[in-house]
Amino acid sequence: MNTFPEALLTGYRDFMSGRYVDQRDRYRQLAEQGQKPHTLVVACCDSRAAPEMIFDAGPGELFVVRNVANMVPPYEPDGQYHSTSAALEFAVQALRVKDIIVMGHGRCGGITAALDPNAEPLSPGDFIGKWMNLVKPAAEQIQGNSEMTSGERQTALERISIRNSIANLRTFPYVKALEEAQKLRIHGAWFDISNGELWLMDPKSQDFLRMDPAA
Amino acid sequence: MNTFPEALLTGYRDFMSGRYVDQRDRYRQLAEQGQKPHTLVVACCDSRAAPEMIFDAGPGELFVVRNVANMVPPYEPDGQYHSTSAALEFAVQALRVKDIIVMGHGRCGGITAALDPNAEPLSPGDFIGKWMNLVKPAAEQIQGNSEMTSGERQTALERISIRNSIANLRTFPYVKALEEAQKLRIHGAWFDISNGELWLMDPKSQDFLRMDPAA
Amino acid sequence: MNTFPEALLTGYRDFMSGRYVDQRDRYRQLAEQGQKPHTLVVACCDSRAAPEMIFDAGPGELFVVRNVANMVPPYEPDGQYHSTSAALEFAVQALRVKDIIVMGHGRCGGITAALDPNAEPLSPGDFIGKWMNLVKPAAEQIQGNSEMTSGERQTALERISIRNSIANLRTFPYVKALEEAQKLRIHGAWFDISNGELWLMDPKSQDFLRMDPAA
Amino acid sequence: MNTFPEALLTGYRDFMSGRYVDQRDRYRQLAEQGQKPHTLVVACCDSRAAPEMIFDAGPGELFVVRNVANMVPPYEPDGQYHSTSAALEFAVQALRVKDIIVMGHGRCGGITAALDPNAEPLSPGDFIGKWMNLVKPAAEQIQGNSEMTSGERQTALERISIRNSIANLRTFPYVKALEEAQKLRIHGAWFDISNGELWLMDPKSQDFLRMDPAA
Repeated sequence: MNTFPEALLTGYRDFMSGRYVDQRDRYRQLAEQGQKPHTLVVACCDSRAAPEMIFDAGPGELFVVRNVANMVPPYEPDGQYHSTSAALEFAVQALRVKDIIVMGHGRCGGITAALDPNAEPLSPGDFIGKWMNLVKPAAEQIQGNSEMTSGERQTALERISIRNSIANLRTFPYVKALEEAQKLRIHGAWFDISNGELWLMDPKSQDFLRMDPAA
Repeated sequence: MNTFPEALLTGYRDFMSGRYVDQRDRYRQLAEQGQKPHTLVVACCDSRAAPEMIFDAGPGELFVVRNVANMVPPYEPDGQYHSTSAALEFAVQALRVKDIIVMGHGRCGGITAALDPNAEPLSPGDFIGKWMNLVKPAAEQIQGNSEMTSGERQTALERISIRNSIANLRTFPYVKALEEAQKLRIHGAWFDISNGELWLMDPKSQDFLRMDPAA
Repeated sequence: MNTFPEALLTGYRDFMSGRYVDQRDRYRQLAEQGQKPHTLVVACCDSRAAPEMIFDAGPGELFVVRNVANMVPPYEPDGQYHSTSAALEFAVQALRVKDIIVMGHGRCGGITAALDPNAEPLSPGDFIGKWMNLVKPAAEQIQGNSEMTSGERQTALERISIRNSIANLRTFPYVKALEEAQKLRIHGAWFDISNGELWLMDPKSQDFLRMDPAA
Repeated sequence: MNTFPEALLTGYRDFMSGRYVDQRDRYRQLAEQGQKPHTLVVACCDSRAAPEMIFDAGPGELFVVRNVANMVPPYEPDGQYHSTSAALEFAVQALRVKDIIVMGHGRCGGITAALDPNAEPLSPGDFIGKWMNLVKPAAEQIQGNSEMTSGERQTALERISIRNSIANLRTFPYVKALEEAQKLRIHGAWFDISNGELWLMDPKSQDFLRMDPAA
């Protein structure tokens, strides 16, 4: 224990003397009655993109999956370990969430890697390379576009990837069925870490439109 | 956008008028310079177990993977999608984190499912069942113990699973090498959602000992 | 008398010039009127687990049985010497205590011995071995669990043993009858000698929950 | 937990904010290094006769067996449960105590019961009756003595019983051997609960002589 990162222990003490005190009853109730989050958020591991922070959410509100580049793979019931698929299944079938949000963000490292034609594997296993293959076809299209700036290609692929993940969500039979029965809603969102802007995907056009907090 | 969960939009507005204002410069700097989180946290999707909350962490501090039951699978470079392995690779090889924390918690639904001998698959794909197979041998040992209460079996398996995930981390060659070179430290933690207690795994005995915030 | 342990004589002098002076009247009254302790405590002989210390109890409060591993054997009216059963009978039928507490503790030597598959008898009579047979079935279940640490198995068996002793208390017909008539209450407690924590057994779940002295 | 005797919880809080604070390091050390008490005390369950109080002993000092009338049965390796014999074995063979004290006290309820020719069993099992049979021959002798007051008969039998228990200690082969090798010393003591007096048994004459705390 003398090696546990001191900054985190300090943060824990602050939590215990601050927010936890305010929410002590809520934590106890959530422990006794179980969690009933209404929303599943698929977010990125990125240290700047925590949904609880961005949506000012407290305990019990959001069931959160976080992986590199906030992606949902297509439905593949082949018996392998599928952590994102397992989390989706648990959220939808056990916890019966009403909403799923796929939330991407700007400056996403996974997307940057996918766009880099010279990217070397980070290890012989090349897990990142294989994982980012989920977005490879789209990456190859965008990579070739010399008229867009690298920033524009980055943002474009981040949003394309959100749409791909949403399409992949719909390859899960129970997701599709529940959405069609209007018991489940799917949303896309994109957070600009540089200025705090939140962009929401319009369900009809699939464009991302800035949400004005003042409105 | 009129379908995006209103509670989250309200939360976002609170974020933008509250914490974001305090940290605006930090977000901008993190966007321009990139993230340099020092710690990777493997946590559970559970809505009561967000590391940012528990460690009172701000943007840029923690690179967070969240899956059901905060598990790390063993190293399997077989070309499949491995989201947790990809996140681990990115954190260690690209971001060069110094610490990895596997953080479990009490009342974990995945662990409860693993201990339930009558558990039915949640879908034909049974993703949760397959995912929880990562902890199946240990679950079977504990399940048979009739002298322990169900609460004791639950807590025991939550902690055993953390130890298993830590062992799995060490099956990744670069993790093992970096740890031996003392450039990477691995920690186990367990958060009691009912009373806010944080228990840290002693590296020698592997027992979980309560961290006293007042000490 | 020149052989009586000097440390104890010093302690006795301190007692007589300290606490005894404060409580002189109480001792006299207790001698004249007899003892009326309200609580029977079954505790361990262990030098770190004295109930008077842990509960800051003065003379007249606690009727205390202490044996190895604070165990209560099942009701066996076979005419043999049964010191714990005799003490229980005296406490309940003669002194009419209202509460019985079975109090275990961490690092209990008897429990450690019960968990040691290689334990040799301490003497040809093997009294400890026979005595610890009271908890043998549970010990064998726990011993086999290779996923738990030795510390976890120790704590688990300490608590299982408390529950077993409580069940054995209820095999005494008058204990059972008085409890059902709500004239006697039975409690389980476990004291962590390493940090002073006191854990109380929840009557419903039979889990041990930490008692927060600050609450 | 809401039924646990409140007086004891209050006492525990006092302990934790008082004596425990002073001795925190000692408790931690005793937990890590194990207990090494030098003395076994056989004392009575009586709420007025706690050795820790009388000898002002702290954690780690005394290994304490408490039963009704502080008796040691003779050595009987017959495979039955023998809690006092087990505790003796553990103290002498495992903990290697250097001193054994059999400590009786005035107004002992067990002795009073043994002297009562009209005593009815407290239950069909009559555990107290059977237990006090350890001192029955001596009780019968004293009972017949009409010249002594009941108080004198009581005190006489309390002291006879201490001598009997000491003789029974010597029926344990390893006790006898260690005493003869001068590695173990046996002592008798008698505490007068009415006035705090401590009387120590002279090893030669076996008389009990008052220990003067001022000397």
